[in-house]
Amino acid sequence: MAYNLLKGKNGIIFGALDEKSIAWRTALKCHEEGARLVLTNAPVALRMGEINKLAEITNAPVIPADVTNMDDLKKLFEEALNHFNGKIDFILHSIGMSLNVRKGKSYTELDYGFNQKTLDISAMSLHRVLRTAWDLDAMNDWGSVVALTYIAAQRVFPHYSEMADAKALLESVARSFGYHYAVKKKVRINTISQSPTRTTAGSGVKGFDGFISYAEKMSPLGNATGDDCASYCVSLFSDLTKMVTMQNLYHDGGFSSMGVTQEVLDGMEDE
Amino acid sequence: MAYNLLKGKNGIIFGALDEKSIAWRTALKCHEEGARLVLTNAPVALRMGEINKLAEITNAPVIPADVTNMDDLKKLFEEALNHFNGKIDFILHSIGMSLNVRKGKSYTELDYGFNQKTLDISAMSLHRVLRTAWDLDAMNDWGSVVALTYIAAQRVFPHYSEMADAKALLESVARSFGYHYAVKKKVRINTISQSPTRTTAGSGVKGFDGFISYAEKMSPLGNATGDDCASYCVSLFSDLTKMVTMQNLYHDGGFSSMGVTQEVLDGMEDE
Amino acid sequence: MAYNLLKGKNGIIFGALDEKSIAWRTALKCHEEGARLVLTNAPVALRMGEINKLAEITNAPVIPADVTNMDDLKKLFEEALNHFNGKIDFILHSIGMSLNVRKGKSYTELDYGFNQKTLDISAMSLHRVLRTAWDLDAMNDWGSVVALTYIAAQRVFPHYSEMADAKALLESVARSFGYHYAVKKKVRINTISQSPTRTTAGSGVKGFDGFISYAEKMSPLGNATGDDCASYCVSLFSDLTKMVTMQNLYHDGGFSSMGVTQEVLDGMEDE
Amino acid sequence: MAYNLLKGKNGIIFGALDEKSIAWRTALKCHEEGARLVLTNAPVALRMGEINKLAEITNAPVIPADVTNMDDLKKLFEEALNHFNGKIDFILHSIGMSLNVRKGKSYTELDYGFNQKTLDISAMSLHRVLRTAWDLDAMNDWGSVVALTYIAAQRVFPHYSEMADAKALLESVARSFGYHYAVKKKVRINTISQSPTRTTAGSGVKGFDGFISYAEKMSPLGNATGDDCASYCVSLFSDLTKMVTMQNLYHDGGFSSMGVTQEVLDGMEDE
Repeated sequence: MAYNLLKGKNGIIFGALDEKSIAWRTALKCHEEGARLVLTNAPVALRMGEINKLAEITNAPVIPADVTNMDDLKKLFEEALNHFNGKIDFILHSIGMSLNVRKGKSYTELDYGFNQKTLDISAMSLHRVLRTAWDLDAMNDWGSVVALTYIAAQRVFPHYSEMADAKALLESVARSFGYHYAVKKKVRINTISQSPTRTTAGSGVKGFDGFISYAEKMSPLGNATGDDCASYCVSLFSDLTKMVTMQNLYHDGGFSSMGVTQEVLDGMEDE
Repeated sequence: MAYNLLKGKNGIIFGALDEKSIAWRTALKCHEEGARLVLTNAPVALRMGEINKLAEITNAPVIPADVTNMDDLKKLFEEALNHFNGKIDFILHSIGMSLNVRKGKSYTELDYGFNQKTLDISAMSLHRVLRTAWDLDAMNDWGSVVALTYIAAQRVFPHYSEMADAKALLESVARSFGYHYAVKKKVRINTISQSPTRTTAGSGVKGFDGFISYAEKMSPLGNATGDDCASYCVSLFSDLTKMVTMQNLYHDGGFSSMGVTQEVLDGMEDE
Repeated sequence: MAYNLLKGKNGIIFGALDEKSIAWRTALKCHEEGARLVLTNAPVALRMGEINKLAEITNAPVIPADVTNMDDLKKLFEEALNHFNGKIDFILHSIGMSLNVRKGKSYTELDYGFNQKTLDISAMSLHRVLRTAWDLDAMNDWGSVVALTYIAAQRVFPHYSEMADAKALLESVARSFGYHYAVKKKVRINTISQSPTRTTAGSGVKGFDGFISYAEKMSPLGNATGDDCASYCVSLFSDLTKMVTMQNLYHDGGFSSMGVTQEVLDGMEDE
Repeated sequence: MAYNLLKGKNGIIFGALDEKSIAWRTALKCHEEGARLVLTNAPVALRMGEINKLAEITNAPVIPADVTNMDDLKKLFEEALNHFNGKIDFILHSIGMSLNVRKGKSYTELDYGFNQKTLDISAMSLHRVLRTAWDLDAMNDWGSVVALTYIAAQRVFPHYSEMADAKALLESVARSFGYHYAVKKKVRINTISQSPTRTTAGSGVKGFDGFISYAEKMSPLGNATGDDCASYCVSLFSDLTKMVTMQNLYHDGGFSSMGVTQEVLDGMEDE
């Protein structure tokens, strides 16, 4: 079911790796809603993924960019502006990577060099993206930026490790830059705090299946899927939500507002 | 611009008094988006207002109901189910009234009888509405309920007085009932925490113009209007936001995430 | 171990029923820290409890007061002022009662008459207490008021039912009145959001043992006891915390900042 | 007035520069309360400051340490353990530095190299300190760690710039490490979100006087001073607060719970 909510709008989607990616699902949904798209990811991710398939379906160019490299980002935005022959209306930031998690280093034994890369790629990249758009005056008035985050930024989930800190930093960047961009160009910037989602990237987190199952039992509506998230992104990119900015929006079937569900208590009491 | 987002959906709108009401603006927008509506308000409000004009435009029956009276609510829902010949997909709760504020009694000199009425009308009414729907099994699966609230539930705005407490109670009811209704019928319940809005009801609050002007300066995008709120309600009634529940959603141009804006500081420093 | 932290201070303790009551533990600890006390509770609770034992240990008069009755409260404060021959430095509000919970009525089938009593006794009573003190100018500058609450005000715990809404209302009253009393007399008002505690009152909540055990596993330091809470109250009544006001302070061994602990996940995975 | 609250306890104080430093005030207060101390700061800060005066008053050794250098931190903790001939009971982390703010670079034109240093010094330093203590098993059971932060981590204050993001990161580190340390050794870790305070470091922030004056008007009790903060730190280092962990505690005269005060509105309306 499509509504033409994004007809006439131009968007850049960061982070589509394969069909399970939230960014992939969002690109599909934005395309169905009438948007024109540019797809981007890190060169290494592009090699691993199957993004050309997505590019074909959505009729979108793929422009590689390392989000820690300002020259790459400048090139990306310049090419996007050329491709659209117009400014950008929305951006999805779906980027996160933790070398410490990948290497199995626990939170109390972080490698600080890895940690710096985690913060740079997963959080400060949002600042770099926004700043590139800002410097090039690449956004239309009332443009909308969404970055994906996780509730570990507010509450501890042991296995999420340093990514929790990265997400807290990301959400702060969204607020901080959100103020400046709202005042200057009416651009709104929000984060979506999504249920744990079975993506290829998420699978890297140790104990992730336990996470997912626990979250499912703790969420009155169950976990939100990648497709659900794509729909929510569309609502935030659309003109229906123009006055929502600098918010962290839980999209999680109610998880964030639960102390405990009967289902979880039942599970515990069975022991 | 309409998208048919609510095509085939049935909704009840509580609280439309006159053209300035958020409920009025929302009813218009829902109608444009294809919904079928039932309008309701307290008998006394119906006499004061101009709701028949709205009823005509939206082709909706007006059914009076005192929200503190379970018989009235039962009758309302039964008539709505008959009118729609089907269940209900969405409800807007836009109801608030403080006798203490009206009578000029400050927060430190509340009349406790008035206070009890304030809590009953402005907050527990949401429980009564939901409970009536629950008992009659009147909602469709994945139905959506929105109640309007204000950030005074989290932070003190002196003139808002006991309405702050009523809104805190209202938001808690939304969460508490939201759990049960999600588990039973996938119904989601959220509150929208709206910018101060120049409605006929809002004008009753002493110092309200100061409020509005301060909020405007403190909001990077400015204050959200009633029409903006109507659009946001549509997004929450639509299928785009099915996994959002038990949330308090700020719709305020960024106000809630500001410590201070440059504009407010400039105002203060001028003294 | 005592420090004389409350030497020279006068306090009123609401809600000591028996040895398990947090109010009882707090009265003992305040006494050890050098405070002079007045004890109070509802006439019916005084008959059921063993408060005379506490009165003897702490050398404090017991003055009955129904917290929904302004005449009772006035009499209580007047007698306390007489007894101390001076104003009051601190107040503990440890009062909560839900007839719906007692009668086994679930949240979706509340009796609204009972509900009104619950809100009046458990939440608006704080307003009545503060307002009585305000009208009699009974507090010393920099006085400190603490009301006990529970995290159900923020997140849903199914069995807590309407008490969640009452606690949300209570916390709002603390903030709202906190503003006025800070401006007028530097009196600070805070709520302590305490771990579930095995008190005689708490035992009335269905499924409470499941609560306690789950909370223990979800709290990195374990659940805080009544004695722990008493110590925390002392810190908030003391001069060490003079600039803390209008806060909801979690005293819960870290529960409120957890998404999930390894211990809970392990429990779930065992199924 | 002293209570012997920290008698027999050993603490390390990071960040005392001169008499205005919160760390300085806290060291004095901890000393008065019976604690034994080790003072530390960056070598360059030690050269600029007058810390020997403080060392003399508190009878404490000064051990230089660059908090971004693990060898320095290891040496610091080893020397402290030797000096105390026992483990450590409390730590104050009062460390923050932003080269971008110092150089006058606004938030939309950050130097990313500077930014990385800001995050490392102001936030990840807490992880490094805790990890050093963890690796050396340097803390006593029920030890207490406090890091100073600012509400800019939750709400935007334009001039606070990248320090807002650093504080959000810092608070997340406190939560994340707080979980692990609580489970392992009952060590609690909290952040105090302090009123803006006229320290030598704070003076580096452009528009800081406007900040202070606005915050004063917005705080029902006025701004908390460095001495007030020292007292609050003592309460958190003491045994009165053993079950408080992983919390961000506002110590701000009520600022964080205000939407607006009458005093601020009056200021605005005067224009």
